[in-house]
Amino acid sequence: MINKVTLYEKIIREAIDKVLLEEQPRSLFDPARYILSLGGKRLRPLLTLMAVDLFGKEVKKAVNPALAIEIFHNFSLLHDDLMDNADMRRGNPTVHMRWNANSAILSGDAMVIEAYRYIARVPADILPEILNLFSTTAMEICKGQQYDMDFEQRMDVSENEYIEMIRLKTAVLIGCALKIGALLADAAPQDADALYRYGINIGLAFQLKDDLLDVYGDPKTFGKKIGGDIVSNKKTYLLIKALKNANIGQREELGRWLSETEFDPEAKINFVKNIYDVLNLKTISENLIEKYYLASLDCLSLINVSDERKKDLINLSESLMYREK
Amino acid sequence: MINKVTLYEKIIREAIDKVLLEEQPRSLFDPARYILSLGGKRLRPLLTLMAVDLFGKEVKKAVNPALAIEIFHNFSLLHDDLMDNADMRRGNPTVHMRWNANSAILSGDAMVIEAYRYIARVPADILPEILNLFSTTAMEICKGQQYDMDFEQRMDVSENEYIEMIRLKTAVLIGCALKIGALLADAAPQDADALYRYGINIGLAFQLKDDLLDVYGDPKTFGKKIGGDIVSNKKTYLLIKALKNANIGQREELGRWLSETEFDPEAKINFVKNIYDVLNLKTISENLIEKYYLASLDCLSLINVSDERKKDLINLSESLMYREK
Repeated sequence: MINKVTLYEKIIREAIDKVLLEEQPRSLFDPARYILSLGGKRLRPLLTLMAVDLFGKEVKKAVNPALAIEIFHNFSLLHDDLMDNADMRRGNPTVHMRWNANSAILSGDAMVIEAYRYIARVPADILPEILNLFSTTAMEICKGQQYDMDFEQRMDVSENEYIEMIRLKTAVLIGCALKIGALLADAAPQDADALYRYGINIGLAFQLKDDLLDVYGDPKTFGKKIGGDIVSNKKTYLLIKALKNANIGQREELGRWLSETEFDPEAKINFVKNIYDVLNLKTISENLIEKYYLASLDCLSLINVSDERKKDLINLSESLMYREK
Repeated sequence: MINKVTLYEKIIREAIDKVLLEEQPRSLFDPARYILSLGGKRLRPLLTLMAVDLFGKEVKKAVNPALAIEIFHNFSLLHDDLMDNADMRRGNPTVHMRWNANSAILSGDAMVIEAYRYIARVPADILPEILNLFSTTAMEICKGQQYDMDFEQRMDVSENEYIEMIRLKTAVLIGCALKIGALLADAAPQDADALYRYGINIGLAFQLKDDLLDVYGDPKTFGKKIGGDIVSNKKTYLLIKALKNANIGQREELGRWLSETEFDPEAKINFVKNIYDVLNLKTISENLIEKYYLASLDCLSLINVSDERKKDLINLSESLMYREK
């Protein structure tokens, strides 16, 4: 028998293949289909379907809002890549590199609207609630991206500010994906909320794991170059924690590397990683990831369905926690 | 007694003043409030309120969707200014000039979402229909902007293609603003559709008048420099028609001016305007505007309310047709 999650992934893949397939002009929609075709884990739409399944309902009716979430996620990647001036996305040229900045702007705009068109297809009786959740989440993601950009100019970002930023930029869409599934499955409000909080905690752990892998991942399995965040001065959890925990001498040296415009990337990665090692940040970070992971399981345990039904979600979140890429 | 339309304009102005007033971070929302504060005619939200009034209903409940339309309109100006590399908007620096390109991208994105949040506040029983109309319209506006950009690279744009482009880029939002008012006022479907078509025709006439004023406007009353479209090679109705109606010699000369990168703006304006004069394009254009204006009145006459109730809309559209700026 085919694994249920594998089946859901297939349903999502086939549905994504049909998004914006026929509409004209192609100059507007080809960039949208391009970024959607680059793949990725399809984690968010999968979570929507798994959430419906958690409450024992038919997943078919969740495909449209699941697509809305995946389209919105890819829109945010498209515009973020342009704002961050990133050349590559999943091993391929970004939209603004393959086309141009104007294409990236306008095709991204069209993707936001297309996401709303898929949201609009949910049953009318739950449309207001799902639409509000989706818009609140979408706005939070914009706020998260703005904080992320604002943090680039600051050396005094606190750990709490960082966690709030990744909550907005990453975690809320995972919570939203799950909660939309719960709402479609007519789950009890407290169950839908617990599932949302499960998603927030998983999302935070997921992003912290991302930060960690960028420095401590195995180059053989990681898929992209180790140390990219260090080279680009990205304000990750590790860097923020290092700036806080470093002694005066370490902080001064770190500051020098951060303000250097011409440098040997390998030398910078080695220096910063050494500071992280000395400050024990790998363990500190792993402990925080574990904390959020355990909190997510607590949320899941509050949901009033059998443990058997929760297995797929637990397996998935475990695989996210212990992933190597 | 205060004029009804003046009262509606005041309601809209006061409501716009409150949009995104309190939300954080300000770095995300100040650019949005800035472009919203630059004014303009507030034509679209006014039309929504006037449409509700046309059917004798209370306009208050239409304020939220009217704001949605004005916010979306200003989002499209914001992103279009960035894509067109425009320095000024309504006598003030554009958002990407006053802040930067990233601010323009992300604040514009946030405005789309904010527009949907205002749409979501309409009564639940008509939310699906209004949401679908709004999304269809929003997508059409993106398509119109894409065609407009695609036309820049082409010398063979037909009159029909041009009319379809301005229908998408300008007219559909005017139709949408009116139809949302009709739906909120519980108008009969055929009345709502006639009002939509009235808006499309007014919108087409409005944009053609814009093109015309840019060349033939009175410099004293027009408000911005005459001939801007000519200098920037914008594919307006006049230019498209000139390229079509010119004889071989005229077309060659016109082509030379269009491909010139260094030129005296006054000389180019004089040359192109002279071609327009010789080809009688002012009259041809005025006749087309008149055609759409008369078609709009035909649509209005189909609507099953008293002529007395239609007066405000007729006065407004007349003032748009005979405006000098």
